[in-house]
Amino acid sequence: MMGALELVGESRCFGGRQLRFAHRAASLDCDMHFAVYLPPQAESEPVPVLYWLSGLTCNDENFTTKAGAQRYASAHGVALVAPDTSPRGEGVPDDPEGAWDFGLGAGFYVNATNAPWSAHYRMYDYVLEDLPAALAGLPLDTSRAAISGHSMGGHGALVIALRNPGRFRSVSAFAPICSPTRCPWGEKALGNYLGDDRAAWESYDSTCLIRLAGEHLPMLVDQGEADGFLAEQLRPELLREAAQEAGYPLTLRMQPDYDHSYYFISTFIGEHIAFHASHL
Amino acid sequence: MMGALELVGESRCFGGRQLRFAHRAASLDCDMHFAVYLPPQAESEPVPVLYWLSGLTCNDENFTTKAGAQRYASAHGVALVAPDTSPRGEGVPDDPEGAWDFGLGAGFYVNATNAPWSAHYRMYDYVLEDLPAALAGLPLDTSRAAISGHSMGGHGALVIALRNPGRFRSVSAFAPICSPTRCPWGEKALGNYLGDDRAAWESYDSTCLIRLAGEHLPMLVDQGEADGFLAEQLRPELLREAAQEAGYPLTLRMQPDYDHSYYFISTFIGEHIAFHASHL
Repeated sequence: MMGALELVGESRCFGGRQLRFAHRAASLDCDMHFAVYLPPQAESEPVPVLYWLSGLTCNDENFTTKAGAQRYASAHGVALVAPDTSPRGEGVPDDPEGAWDFGLGAGFYVNATNAPWSAHYRMYDYVLEDLPAALAGLPLDTSRAAISGHSMGGHGALVIALRNPGRFRSVSAFAPICSPTRCPWGEKALGNYLGDDRAAWESYDSTCLIRLAGEHLPMLVDQGEADGFLAEQLRPELLREAAQEAGYPLTLRMQPDYDHSYYFISTFIGEHIAFHASHL
Repeated sequence: MMGALELVGESRCFGGRQLRFAHRAASLDCDMHFAVYLPPQAESEPVPVLYWLSGLTCNDENFTTKAGAQRYASAHGVALVAPDTSPRGEGVPDDPEGAWDFGLGAGFYVNATNAPWSAHYRMYDYVLEDLPAALAGLPLDTSRAAISGHSMGGHGALVIALRNPGRFRSVSAFAPICSPTRCPWGEKALGNYLGDDRAAWESYDSTCLIRLAGEHLPMLVDQGEADGFLAEQLRPELLREAAQEAGYPLTLRMQPDYDHSYYFISTFIGEHIAFHASHL
């Protein structure tokens, strides 16, 4: 059933199964881990998929251990698929100073074109190609898919959905980096991964992409007002502006007092899963 | 409001507040951290308290980040108080070989009487005395209290409740170490903390205490059948036997396929909080 996947962890959870897999990722030229939660409904029929992209410094386990999402996935019959956030392994270059906002744990869901990053840092292709292919043996209906994520992963979810609306039925994000071409985290990452030509960066900026979108997806974004990264790095007002100008149906909710942590995500993940389930 | 408490962390969560405090613990002669979740109801009136005792290697943060308990605490108007699992700090002795099942992170909720442990390892007194006293400035009604825990913390919850039935209205446990006088983890811990006199160990063994109980509390225990520690370390059959012989009203539920992880706890913590709330 698992094909070239190696099952490296399994726990019963809310009547379903929390799984962890290892596999070889062609796009990234390295071995990767990802997590899958199969709700109990998957025992009798293929279930739709919600992809979750995590933020800076995370791997595939942060969401599965901290969000409390399995409860809602079980209730709605939706599988959760959570990849790692960057290529990994001995041959994969890291930030030369070991910074946490670039390199390992900070792939930004782009296809790097700039050496030395271009050999491995191709998380955009990994999420769109390798990961769905790796799921082939599981009881999933990947034609019914949605995507969500947090912070850097919120940026990834928005960008991947906006560029591939035919692949997803809905998109959501928690505290996304809305415009990486206009914030320090994004400028550092895109400058290194893509090089100095800022025009190339725009294909990874949701505020640019949303203006070009032909097809509209249901889009839900939650942002905590007490998030310490809000004003400098996340900038949801730029996404709201761009959506308004483009006539894109964005629901952006500012949540008073919530910060950037999984306490924020755990509070609203149930509403996000219900939102996606209504479109799946 | 906080008295001698130092507030070291605060996040909004499910409409309430997830707090982390530092304070000086007289019983332990060291500085300690503990976590408090205040549900939204605490903004208008004092709320009852569920104490949570964690297992080996844990600190006060495992439960607050992984159990997903805040959702249910918010729904039922119950506060969650989660202490660390042992004394901490430079002067506190650890297992000489750095073992994970004894010393730091493994206080076993006893008052040690054996040197060098007796100077700091007094987690029984800490949970019963220092911790409730430290809560005095918070909007809590500590006269309405319940207690629960996991593994070593399940042992702690059962022992503390059985010895102090007037202090708690209900008790529950996930995969508790039911009889530390009759399992390797317990024999190592009690032998070191209490010395060689096995008679002294019995006041920290729920299967001994339950036979002596004059007052009965509502008691709920969940145990996963796929728990790798079940047969050798946890031994719930000994608790069931003792409860039956003593006529103590224990509800012990064996949960097929569940393991020892927080995936198990997160699945059933909602039912435990509802159970406690019905007695608070």
